[in-house]
Amino acid sequence: MPDDALVLAVDVGGGTIKAEIADGQAETLSSAAWPTPPAESAVEAIAQLGRSLIEQVEVAGGGQVSRAGLVIPGLVDREQGRGVYSGNIGWRQLDFRTALEDAWGVPVLLDHDVTIAGWAEWQVGAGRGCDDMFFVSLGTGVAAAIVACGCLLRGGLSQCGEFGHVVVRPGGPECSCGSSGCLEAVSSASAIARAYTASSGQSVSGAADVLDAMPVDPLAVRVWEEAMSALADGLVGVANLLSPERIVLGGGLAASGDALVEPLRQAVAERVKIVPVPDIVPAQFGRRAGVVGAALLARRGGTGTDD
Amino acid sequence: MPDDALVLAVDVGGGTIKAEIADGQAETLSSAAWPTPPAESAVEAIAQLGRSLIEQVEVAGGGQVSRAGLVIPGLVDREQGRGVYSGNIGWRQLDFRTALEDAWGVPVLLDHDVTIAGWAEWQVGAGRGCDDMFFVSLGTGVAAAIVACGCLLRGGLSQCGEFGHVVVRPGGPECSCGSSGCLEAVSSASAIARAYTASSGQSVSGAADVLDAMPVDPLAVRVWEEAMSALADGLVGVANLLSPERIVLGGGLAASGDALVEPLRQAVAERVKIVPVPDIVPAQFGRRAGVVGAALLARRGGTGTDD
Repeated sequence: MPDDALVLAVDVGGGTIKAEIADGQAETLSSAAWPTPPAESAVEAIAQLGRSLIEQVEVAGGGQVSRAGLVIPGLVDREQGRGVYSGNIGWRQLDFRTALEDAWGVPVLLDHDVTIAGWAEWQVGAGRGCDDMFFVSLGTGVAAAIVACGCLLRGGLSQCGEFGHVVVRPGGPECSCGSSGCLEAVSSASAIARAYTASSGQSVSGAADVLDAMPVDPLAVRVWEEAMSALADGLVGVANLLSPERIVLGGGLAASGDALVEPLRQAVAERVKIVPVPDIVPAQFGRRAGVVGAALLARRGGTGTDD
Repeated sequence: MPDDALVLAVDVGGGTIKAEIADGQAETLSSAAWPTPPAESAVEAIAQLGRSLIEQVEVAGGGQVSRAGLVIPGLVDREQGRGVYSGNIGWRQLDFRTALEDAWGVPVLLDHDVTIAGWAEWQVGAGRGCDDMFFVSLGTGVAAAIVACGCLLRGGLSQCGEFGHVVVRPGGPECSCGSSGCLEAVSSASAIARAYTASSGQSVSGAADVLDAMPVDPLAVRVWEEAMSALADGLVGVANLLSPERIVLGGGLAASGDALVEPLRQAVAERVKIVPVPDIVPAQFGRRAGVVGAALLARRGGTGTDD
């Protein structure tokens, strides 16, 4: 691909589809965010969103899009360009690539959202230069991308990185997966909001409300601290197993800044006994990591470590 | 190295040093096992043990040893050929390579015992053909070797694979590392023996006694089941994080056969919700995996995936 070619990048989230057209310097020429529609109209909505961006840029004389990268949640068949399964959005065996290549007239690469967000942080973000890095996406769900020995891990039987379903509190809160005490059931943004509502009787719109209440509400402090403590236990397990140089915290919850990073740093430093303490840093691209990664995927024509 | 060259392989364990001389078909020409001496005389004892095997084989006209592989516990500096630290045996910064190359007159490769045991199972044993494999050594301690995306992982800040210090029972039994509820403090052979003694008041010589008592002693059954349940939780975490095709169970406890493998298979199959259930199999080389790996290391001149 020539250096000045444009790419279309799309990140399909549970609530929002983000799309942008980026140039060779990774500058955004045009971007949009639409609410994620139900599974049955997902492909058509994504096709339209991409088409509208391509047209805008062409009308403005910005140039031609040469390739597209699409990242989606759930299980992904990268070879076939299919969304195999997404519990959140509800699709099964959805053929994204054929439909989108027809709609956009360019080759489309499909990959997994969190894996690619972590890959982007590794390649050009907060994990740059590390051969062993662990990226955690903390939001409604919790998942990870793992770089070890300079390889982006993909998993054997399935996509790897289901960090949210590591049990950190045996016998703890029920998880949507059917197990209990999973990290996602204790430390995700939604779990924090649920725990606060369950203890206080007050409904909150999300983990950000709990964080905002901390200066004046000891219950909010306790709920937050318990979530961070369980997350620290999960990260201590990762440090013992993989001994990454750096842990990069991404996803929506990473916007909490020091309230997230500081207690984790402290708890991990206290609890890691055998291995050295890994560096814990916030992600560089925040919620944009998925779309940044989708653009990089399109520009490079793959992640290069597994294709 | 010519195909018919001999190698000397040494596995330094907490209780025993095993050594053997193997030919190009991995047949053992000569072997010996000595009790592990204190740290201050470890190098001299290993030197003597190796020298005696080399002499035996030469006297018998078996041929010449061309290279040696030595695997040791604790932290290892492979580049410098030093044992950095072993809590169990008690050494710090022990220069094995210089002393042993002097004593044996051949190049010596040094590496970590569990990593190399797992590497041997991956290359020529029960993990053969898997690009994603998790090897667990279950004995006095618990540790792992990880193969992911066809790479033998080494870890970033430290040797990876400290599976024994993943916390599976928060607030559980104290661990020698200073933490509590570590897998090693609940599911290792020594932890099983300790838990049985603590509940029954009867002292036992090891986990094998607990296993033997199971047909007639409900307390032994309970202690064993709790250890297996905690180990299953640890393996479920690994399945979620790495999604290995196969989990290979090695170390002394793996000699327990079905009593080990069956409850683990069942518990992991029940508790893994998101990812497919990995295959769980006993190691092919059992307690010999370390020395088999040391011989392979010497023959190949390294593990090839990281050198």
